[in-house]
Amino acid sequence: MSRVLILSKNAAEYRPLVEAARLPGLEKLAAATNPSEALALEDDFDVVFGEPSLVRNVITQLSKLRWVQATYAGVEPLLDPTLRRDYLLTNARGVFGGLMSEYVFGYLLQHERRMVERYRAQQELRWDRTITGTLRGKTIGLLGVGSIGTVLAGTARHFDMAVRGYTRASESCPDVNTYYHGSQLLDFADGLDYLVTVLPNTRETVRIVDASLLARLPAGAVFINVGRGSTVEDNSLVDALRTGKLAAAVLDVFEQEPLPTEHPFWHTPNLLMTFHTSAPSIPADLARLFIENYCRYEAGQTPLHAVDFERGY
Amino acid sequence: MSRVLILSKNAAEYRPLVEAARLPGLEKLAAATNPSEALALEDDFDVVFGEPSLVRNVITQLSKLRWVQATYAGVEPLLDPTLRRDYLLTNARGVFGGLMSEYVFGYLLQHERRMVERYRAQQELRWDRTITGTLRGKTIGLLGVGSIGTVLAGTARHFDMAVRGYTRASESCPDVNTYYHGSQLLDFADGLDYLVTVLPNTRETVRIVDASLLARLPAGAVFINVGRGSTVEDNSLVDALRTGKLAAAVLDVFEQEPLPTEHPFWHTPNLLMTFHTSAPSIPADLARLFIENYCRYEAGQTPLHAVDFERGY
Repeated sequence: MSRVLILSKNAAEYRPLVEAARLPGLEKLAAATNPSEALALEDDFDVVFGEPSLVRNVITQLSKLRWVQATYAGVEPLLDPTLRRDYLLTNARGVFGGLMSEYVFGYLLQHERRMVERYRAQQELRWDRTITGTLRGKTIGLLGVGSIGTVLAGTARHFDMAVRGYTRASESCPDVNTYYHGSQLLDFADGLDYLVTVLPNTRETVRIVDASLLARLPAGAVFINVGRGSTVEDNSLVDALRTGKLAAAVLDVFEQEPLPTEHPFWHTPNLLMTFHTSAPSIPADLARLFIENYCRYEAGQTPLHAVDFERGY
Repeated sequence: MSRVLILSKNAAEYRPLVEAARLPGLEKLAAATNPSEALALEDDFDVVFGEPSLVRNVITQLSKLRWVQATYAGVEPLLDPTLRRDYLLTNARGVFGGLMSEYVFGYLLQHERRMVERYRAQQELRWDRTITGTLRGKTIGLLGVGSIGTVLAGTARHFDMAVRGYTRASESCPDVNTYYHGSQLLDFADGLDYLVTVLPNTRETVRIVDASLLARLPAGAVFINVGRGSTVEDNSLVDALRTGKLAAAVLDVFEQEPLPTEHPFWHTPNLLMTFHTSAPSIPADLARLFIENYCRYEAGQTPLHAVDFERGY
């Protein structure tokens, strides 16, 4: 028998979705939109489903906590080494790949198809027959090929692109043409038309996109970051755009969010920002994931997508 | 033995590509960028590879003409009933699908992801967390499912969309979920999130996108035309955009090109124009198609993609 707490700003949407599933062995289901509301319930929940930043504020009070299902892929707030780690933490995987793919290829197509320039021509009543670029035949490099990178690789192949993947060790995605690991990072970057990072924030990934990596990209390359802001050396990226080395960058994530208005990114040429919206959490998707995992949990199986606290993802 | 004329504004690019193929039975290969240059050659070519609008000005002079390979999909200039039809006309198919797919889904993603609004937020130093839309789960309707529509259907399925196809009779594309024919046009339109026409200009397709069809689309639908301008009733489209019935339209083709500056399209809200650039003719693609077809022709086989002069495609 399980006592489940939904702790999310979207609690009002999650609750009916979870209720409708008539979960087996469910002793209690409560929902709160913030930590104080949750703590006021004074209940000993063993299962929590919610945003990592909210969940971190209640876990010390839950003596019977056994499992947390995060509504995000990134679970940094729960990785703080001063926090307890005596429970199973699972994150949201297999949910955001399609949305990320729409984002990444949408922005690559906007760039190649010069949609902004076309729009300007229209405003100037100019019949602009300039030939635009194409994704076909281009080479995309994925920094990180987990559940999201795998979907990106599939879309890239759909558009007849060549795909490189840089990973710690895994080579499990059949849509990656060539894998690179460890010290092969600069070789990985050499000749890429597009560099896309989907890396989580870990010790190994901090500032992995630095001046030396950017220098190995060919002139006119495009950089997209849908992973974590900490993976990028901001000043080097600004330089690469200001000198025209990079044709464009599209950033969804930042070291500090919201990004302070004095940050140079706001005014860097050919740098587009999307304010951490690339893969919106769609409640129906995440409720489905939680329900699936709950059924495994209640049946004594291990829920999917366990996070390794040390590794960080 | 064949005498081949390349007649194209891209003749200088085509010629070395065709020469490099060392075509069997090639008696002569000549290249011209315009009709008068071609006629000045005073040669009795039996094969012409080129733009329909140029080719139409030389065919009356070529007494031995047996085959014309068009560099375009649309061959209207050669369909004029006053012109000779005693030769085989093949058009470019299987070449533009990928490019069209990049165009259509690029613009759908620009719309769903509100890329313009995001860009404005950035200019205003505004951290804009507005949730954007997604292609997933949407329904796209393809007016015409030939070689281009088939590729569009595949991309739509890749992005987890539902696909409807309206055709004269064929139901050959497995990526179309539901087919509609003949009098089912308005049912086809009912409930579409996106309506995309890839139809050629024929008697049956003229003004097929009219007020009654647009009226059956749900509010907020998006219309894209990558077929021919003649398929659209311009005033009805302008009305549908002005009243906000349609959220957006993206037009690559127009009844008159270049579009006269006094045409209302230039100033219609949420109407984007791309000036017949959706699928640029990439010489290497078209040379490959010509070379393949030439080998069939020279071997006594029928070249692929024959146009039915009566049907118009």
